[in-house]
Amino acid sequence: MRLLVASICLALFGNASAAETPSPTVPTMSSVLAESSPEEWIDLDPERTLVMQLETGRVVIELAPQFAPKHVANIIALVKGSYFSNSSIVRSQDNYVVQWGDPKADSKDARSLGEAQAKLPAEFDRAADGLTFTALPDPDSYAAQVGFVDGFPVAREGERAWLTHCYGMVGAGRDNPADSSNGSSLYVVTGHSPRHLDRNITVVGRVLEGMPLLSSLPRGTGPLGFFADPAQNVPIKYIHLASHEPDAKRPRLQKLRSDSDSFLKLIEARRSRHEEWFVHPVGRLELCNMALPVR
Amino acid sequence: MRLLVASICLALFGNASAAETPSPTVPTMSSVLAESSPEEWIDLDPERTLVMQLETGRVVIELAPQFAPKHVANIIALVKGSYFSNSSIVRSQDNYVVQWGDPKADSKDARSLGEAQAKLPAEFDRAADGLTFTALPDPDSYAAQVGFVDGFPVAREGERAWLTHCYGMVGAGRDNPADSSNGSSLYVVTGHSPRHLDRNITVVGRVLEGMPLLSSLPRGTGPLGFFADPAQNVPIKYIHLASHEPDAKRPRLQKLRSDSDSFLKLIEARRSRHEEWFVHPVGRLELCNMALPVR
Repeated sequence: MRLLVASICLALFGNASAAETPSPTVPTMSSVLAESSPEEWIDLDPERTLVMQLETGRVVIELAPQFAPKHVANIIALVKGSYFSNSSIVRSQDNYVVQWGDPKADSKDARSLGEAQAKLPAEFDRAADGLTFTALPDPDSYAAQVGFVDGFPVAREGERAWLTHCYGMVGAGRDNPADSSNGSSLYVVTGHSPRHLDRNITVVGRVLEGMPLLSSLPRGTGPLGFFADPAQNVPIKYIHLASHEPDAKRPRLQKLRSDSDSFLKLIEARRSRHEEWFVHPVGRLELCNMALPVR
Repeated sequence: MRLLVASICLALFGNASAAETPSPTVPTMSSVLAESSPEEWIDLDPERTLVMQLETGRVVIELAPQFAPKHVANIIALVKGSYFSNSSIVRSQDNYVVQWGDPKADSKDARSLGEAQAKLPAEFDRAADGLTFTALPDPDSYAAQVGFVDGFPVAREGERAWLTHCYGMVGAGRDNPADSSNGSSLYVVTGHSPRHLDRNITVVGRVLEGMPLLSSLPRGTGPLGFFADPAQNVPIKYIHLASHEPDAKRPRLQKLRSDSDSFLKLIEARRSRHEEWFVHPVGRLELCNMALPVR
């Protein structure tokens, strides 16, 4: 018991998930969430949600067909063909990415893509038209405007919009040709957001549960953080569509709608920090520091 | 061998540390570094460098007395008094921080601070005057201007300047009172940079070697990522000043001067990505995506 007390006292700085001491009049992130209404939350679509089963637990990935329709369709075809069953995490590069797929993809023993396409066009960005965009008010280093679409962090400039490389975002690895990704090798951002990758690679979704299972993997000692010894590859039991999981194992996650009043209040609560710990209330917010609430 | 080839082919996106294919006329990060001159590199000051010895290896921390003189002096006093010998890493919170100190700090069994002060004034920012500031040209979400001072990422606004919470930066944990840190509990940023902590807590330096030993620790399952069970605390054998390490074990690191021509060229090479992999050359750079070269 003493240690737990000691640990709490040692906490030493505030965090969204921490116990907060809200002033009665100024909303904080926790007070906004507590007051959100049920209709502001949306269930994940099990036809657009992946469950990646590792030996250590489950990772849940929400796909983004509104930004990468061809890649998402291809990933679903791969998943339905059990492409990722008994595949591996092959790379863990510090402050960058974790990557997975068929460890023998480039050898004669590469597994079949089944019904999936081997070649797809790049889907680096899309028309900004037709998106419900909740803008953040502060400047961004990489784009004219940033904000959220369907809960995803998005940048837009001129008439184009694209998913951004924030922590937890998932993309489709490619080689030098722009159209060399097909979704059979995927990566997730595990460090400071490498926004220079935006518009250079197809982002397909993001992890909504299980990031610590990926981000805390030992770093690979080979070039680019690949595991130098195949024995270090981390087994992936399978990747299924959530809709194909047995009912008892299906993830039941809800995300806060990014076009809801509560999300707007949450942005303001995160811009102006009124928890007792904060001396300087900040007054600004960078895109990748605005986490989407998931429950 | 096949696996290594497979792995390289699977790399699928470029990175500063990766093999690059520079155009003969446009500088890339690797070509700039290859052409830097010896006098552009500076040795770490062993009187301002800490060596943290874990069972898994060594972490090297450069202190920043130009920003937090009182905290740095106190940390050095603690280190000289062996305060951190047989201490522990007590916290690993995903996408946030790893924190260490005396796990019994808040109990009656707390270790003595020795010659160090128990109480210090906050050192959240300082006068911008007197700093050699290499500015980045692109907008920042949190400050009027950002750039580098002595290789450290720094923000400035009006007449004040402060160290920013980029990946690998080290700060002094505090409780709610602004002046409640004394350097006996330290943290390092292990996720996306929590810039909202800037000017809210005293930043004292940064890790220059060994980040993967800290960032890949299992995440704590207690509140705020503290290890719920003391058995999960990670032992720290000692923290010494580099100057107190035996000659054979003393780190011999050099950092590129952030006021050098090569650093300016490196900023431009990182802003405009000319490696073959890049389709969109980016043309922008955010502070925490500009790593300081260390060799």
